Amino acid sequence: MKIKHFAGVVAAALLTLGTPAVAQETAPMKEFTLEDLNFGGTNYRNMIPQSRRLTWWGDQLVRLEAKECYLVDKKTGKETVLFTVDNVNEWMGGTPDKGLRSLSGARFLYADQPLVLLNYVGERCLIDFEQKKLVWHQSSADERQASAFNTVSRHTAYVSGDQLYFRSADFDKSDIQLTTDGSREIVYGQSVHRNEFGIHDGLFWSPDGMRLAFYRMDQSMVADYPQVNLFPRIAENEPDKYPMAGETSHKVTVGVYDVATNKTIYLKAGDPTDRYFTNVAWSPDAKTIYMLELNRDQNDCRLVSYDAVTGDRIAELYRETDAKYVEPQNPIQFLPWDANKFILQSQKDGYNHLYLFDKNGKELRQITEGDWVVLSVVGFNTKNKSIIITSNECNPIQCNTWEVNVNTGKRTLLDNGEGWHTPSLSASGRYLVDSYQAPEVPRNIEITDAKTLRRTVYFESPNPWEGYKVPQFSCGTVKAADGTTDLYWRMVKPADFDETKKYPTVIYVYGGPHAHNVDARWNYASRSWETYMAQKGYITFILDNRGSENRGKEFEQATFRQLGQQEMLDQMCGVEYLKSLPYVDADRIGVHGWSYGGFMTISLITNYPEVFKVGVAGGPVIDWKWYEVMYGERYMDTPQDNPEGYAKCSLLPMAKNLKGKLQIITGYNDSTVVPQHCLMFIEECIKAGTQPDFFAYPGEGHNMMGHKSVHLHERITQYFEDYLK
Amino acid sequence: MKIKHFAGVVAAALLTLGTPAVAQETAPMKEFTLEDLNFGGTNYRNMIPQSRRLTWWGDQLVRLEAKECYLVDKKTGKETVLFTVDNVNEWMGGTPDKGLRSLSGARFLYADQPLVLLNYVGERCLIDFEQKKLVWHQSSADERQASAFNTVSRHTAYVSGDQLYFRSADFDKSDIQLTTDGSREIVYGQSVHRNEFGIHDGLFWSPDGMRLAFYRMDQSMVADYPQVNLFPRIAENEPDKYPMAGETSHKVTVGVYDVATNKTIYLKAGDPTDRYFTNVAWSPDAKTIYMLELNRDQNDCRLVSYDAVTGDRIAELYRETDAKYVEPQNPIQFLPWDANKFILQSQKDGYNHLYLFDKNGKELRQITEGDWVVLSVVGFNTKNKSIIITSNECNPIQCNTWEVNVNTGKRTLLDNGEGWHTPSLSASGRYLVDSYQAPEVPRNIEITDAKTLRRTVYFESPNPWEGYKVPQFSCGTVKAADGTTDLYWRMVKPADFDETKKYPTVIYVYGGPHAHNVDARWNYASRSWETYMAQKGYITFILDNRGSENRGKEFEQATFRQLGQQEMLDQMCGVEYLKSLPYVDADRIGVHGWSYGGFMTISLITNYPEVFKVGVAGGPVIDWKWYEVMYGERYMDTPQDNPEGYAKCSLLPMAKNLKGKLQIITGYNDSTVVPQHCLMFIEECIKAGTQPDFFAYPGEGHNMMGHKSVHLHERITQYFEDYLK
Repeated sequence: MKIKHFAGVVAAALLTLGTPAVAQETAPMKEFTLEDLNFGGTNYRNMIPQSRRLTWWGDQLVRLEAKECYLVDKKTGKETVLFTVDNVNEWMGGTPDKGLRSLSGARFLYADQPLVLLNYVGERCLIDFEQKKLVWHQSSADERQASAFNTVSRHTAYVSGDQLYFRSADFDKSDIQLTTDGSREIVYGQSVHRNEFGIHDGLFWSPDGMRLAFYRMDQSMVADYPQVNLFPRIAENEPDKYPMAGETSHKVTVGVYDVATNKTIYLKAGDPTDRYFTNVAWSPDAKTIYMLELNRDQNDCRLVSYDAVTGDRIAELYRETDAKYVEPQNPIQFLPWDANKFILQSQKDGYNHLYLFDKNGKELRQITEGDWVVLSVVGFNTKNKSIIITSNECNPIQCNTWEVNVNTGKRTLLDNGEGWHTPSLSASGRYLVDSYQAPEVPRNIEITDAKTLRRTVYFESPNPWEGYKVPQFSCGTVKAADGTTDLYWRMVKPADFDETKKYPTVIYVYGGPHAHNVDARWNYASRSWETYMAQKGYITFILDNRGSENRGKEFEQATFRQLGQQEMLDQMCGVEYLKSLPYVDADRIGVHGWSYGGFMTISLITNYPEVFKVGVAGGPVIDWKWYEVMYGERYMDTPQDNPEGYAKCSLLPMAKNLKGKLQIITGYNDSTVVPQHCLMFIEECIKAGTQPDFFAYPGEGHNMMGHKSVHLHERITQYFEDYLK
Repeated sequence: MKIKHFAGVVAAALLTLGTPAVAQETAPMKEFTLEDLNFGGTNYRNMIPQSRRLTWWGDQLVRLEAKECYLVDKKTGKETVLFTVDNVNEWMGGTPDKGLRSLSGARFLYADQPLVLLNYVGERCLIDFEQKKLVWHQSSADERQASAFNTVSRHTAYVSGDQLYFRSADFDKSDIQLTTDGSREIVYGQSVHRNEFGIHDGLFWSPDGMRLAFYRMDQSMVADYPQVNLFPRIAENEPDKYPMAGETSHKVTVGVYDVATNKTIYLKAGDPTDRYFTNVAWSPDAKTIYMLELNRDQNDCRLVSYDAVTGDRIAELYRETDAKYVEPQNPIQFLPWDANKFILQSQKDGYNHLYLFDKNGKELRQITEGDWVVLSVVGFNTKNKSIIITSNECNPIQCNTWEVNVNTGKRTLLDNGEGWHTPSLSASGRYLVDSYQAPEVPRNIEITDAKTLRRTVYFESPNPWEGYKVPQFSCGTVKAADGTTDLYWRMVKPADFDETKKYPTVIYVYGGPHAHNVDARWNYASRSWETYMAQKGYITFILDNRGSENRGKEFEQATFRQLGQQEMLDQMCGVEYLKSLPYVDADRIGVHGWSYGGFMTISLITNYPEVFKVGVAGGPVIDWKWYEVMYGERYMDTPQDNPEGYAKCSLLPMAKNLKGKLQIITGYNDSTVVPQHCLMFIEECIKAGTQPDFFAYPGEGHNMMGHKSVHLHERITQYFEDYLK
């Protein structure tokens, strides 16, 4: 592997990043504020690593700035102006007050044509920047609820007023309303199943853009959870449909609109009751639709194909069962060079890997294998017959880019083998924009030629914390409570750390599936609040327990039917490690977490009241019976099927054990972990005579947005200052 | 005035009640817990002054115990058993598990007959305790929403399933349903106008019990305020109709059901929009109904008579207007000895006094007069042509019993002229049970013969705090901010008070109309929490500012259209007094209050951030636009009419001024001061970057009930312990 410019090599883990040894004499080191550190802070943008907005135009690289688009020379990084915002306005006849203001949304969708797609004065416009003129346009009005544009046909589907509409590529044609019964109960064209199973939208164009598959979700039978909007003159109830574990769930079906015939059919998938229709995919010829269909118990997953014209069920191509659960999160992907073969992601061998199937469902081979996981499929290289993926093969806390030959399974590392990479692939698959961080690298961007493995350093972010009192970040592992599994932790110590002192120490915890906290990004992915706490004189400690992501199926499924239990045991391994350190004050240990981490925080402070003096729990789950069907039942089954598990994990009976100071914080309108959780815990505390503290952010959901996050973190910090210091 | 037994005389005010000088050597003084002091505490019943449950049977005095009724000799206090619960069960054929368990609800409604009314196994029963047999019975089923029994006819009216029913005295007759459109929107037979204007029920029998007047309230046009019931499996919205200041209000009418004709008519009072129909009264002959009718602006009040048979409006008998407001709170009362004359209560001369009118509305004379107020009409003495009242003529903070001759206006004091008396009058008006407290008297009960003014000491409660470390209670006055008005305060100092020390001091405040905090009851009516705080080493201080009750119209109306403003000025006079005391630590002053007192607490801590270090505000009004029409507009007019007043009194713009520690506490389901108040204040604090604390009691309303009050006061105390001590 050739590296043209970048020479620094950083050990990925078990390394302590020190502050600069001595502050400059002339400029005293600056202190951080939450306005600097928090994402909602007024100075936040200046305090994070810089980046560059890059996009591919075929195999040509384009940098987007507000006022200019630059063509970037992939070998030298040299940039030349492609066109400017003023050019566009000139070509389009725009005026200073009515026209394009920024090119940041420009898209170059046609590899071999000089066309840029821009939203210009309420219209979707394709502009030929060589001919300097508009070549096509389409309204983009009323697309707020959802919309999907197809590059090939240039048709758009969108949802407005809860109804689904078709908008032709032909400007002169009127939009066609495809549904009439859309409502808050009948939801069209939007994400279903509460965004689980990798679902994040509900409109799926066929490759040719002539057929539209879309979700229809009937949630009329789902209970309303009341939500009080405090902001009108008189508060109003604005309920959410919220299917709780074990309760009646919604019914999803998939419709297909055919542009040519102007007809809509529905896939004949049978009774949708208690079934999940996930990961909609099209065959390259637009004739077949595939879904990964899961039963409500989530232990039986089938890949089924449907005729896109008639809706008829064609075949079950693949079936995967598991004693605990199967969790499909990625649609199948057909090989660009062979329409008869597709890639399926599965962790059936214990880790998420790629499998090659023929279109009839015959498994041809396992493409990747090993005790590491494929993190994403970045794209394909047709010429090489290869797939570009990211994986953590180099190290469990890293994310690196590999090219995998589909036929041979041979893997080639395309990056420097360190840190956490976020690659972007050119149209042919030959070139990569390789944006990455490493523990001591705020952000570098390299341009990689996968053919030659030549990497050109295009951008290196200056350290945004230069001149500040930066804390000490370190990373390591402890053994899990099973005695064998390595768990990764991060520790953040004050800039002026003195190992002869004893520090109050706060454990930040998440602990749930689908997430991790420690990785090989800048400062080991430290959250900004840890730096703030370090500055206040605390050590913070974060450990990814079993149940968290990217470590394989057994690691994640250790928590099945008993959420919180193994996680606590693992966290206590972390506590034992902390107690072994002479500079950790074992009498001043606190804990803080949000969401699943709020659940963990209250679990820990009530199960180990002698260990944890202070806790701050945000948006906590208290009893999984109040959490939603899709996520909750995957891990806990239903309250009816697993009463002992629900009882064991419920924090309601633990309310009486509260000894330390615990502040519970919720968004007053949290529609993810609904306030019934924390308020009923408070009710139990009141009955038991224990005294949690409580705060609610009016109008806020599961996470505090914007500057309210600064307020929140000031509040969390103050609580430890009041009671732990 | 003869006093047979009781000899102690206590100066009513400006007196310090000391603890016993030295604790007994043998038994160390006990410490209070909130279980002792708080009304929801497990030991509360043992820690309050004892009393006796006494009732009149004509002019004979009866004491009710669970198992026995005693006849009490009015001269000697000697008691003889009248009958027992076992007697009743024997007469009624009851069994140990199905029968009467307690006599505490016994009523002796017939002065000259040996009849006791009891609820026996779901029936309303009249038992002749001389004949030892049941003489009459009636079902009492389904009377939960409301019910009214008439002693003369023995008919009952009740509300069940939102419908109004008539239940005949004749056991064999079926109940008659009088309405069909009752609902949460159409409310029959219950209190209307949100319990303002002295209204507390909605069923009014004519004296002969043959005609029933009842309220009908149409609140279909009133906005719903959402309230989330957290206790079902999935939380549910259970909204309240809540008319906010300046918004659309309900419409009340008054129906009359005639038992004889089985017909219902409605009083022809005209369009009920924006009108208050209050203080329903009957003429002695049951032919006429009187109401005090008020406009929405509450500055124009008319006494109007109606024909009870036809509903026709007969005449306007009296009209009272005021530049600020008129507040009728008492129905007219006809003289028992002269059906052509009635008593009207009014504070038109500046203080609440009695006026004699003839039945045509001619004012005959003012019966009472002076710069003191009639607190209540206790009853009448027909023989003497006198009215028995309570008033604070002796002292603004006392309540004493007087007999007032209607013809001469001559007043005779019927009690010892001290303390706070709660008299109960015998049928003829000659005898009084005089239950009272005074600053050093936990509770005494005397039996008074109004004819001879002989007072027999019947009961003296032992001091329930004997053996405890009792704090020091004192009372005094300061001048109000107007420089002339005396304001009464109470101070509570630790038992071991040392005037050379400096104490943290907490001001407890209510401050609103219709209430006072300082009076001549036991320990100057000290709230139990003050004793708890004294034990923790705090001084507490309570001052009744202008705007509070019992001091006359000008005193109360000083706050008109600017609630909180004069009250704060007066409270600051109290603070100046405190600062003049060497033992008050001016750097450690806190403030606590609930409801209006919560409004005052936040007003004070944000207007005087340098004075108040810590505050706890419960159920606070934040902006009067969110409070209800009836109470709110009386004092503030509407937001439309008084925008500058609403703006001046709103605490929303004050959120930014918060410097000290402020905890806001609300019942999560407060339907009086709805949570929109405190949550929108918190929202303003978040926007301004200030940090109030917050707590909510799930399922609770405006006040914490039962043992939750113990939890609440532990919480309040802890906050001062954390931040003021």
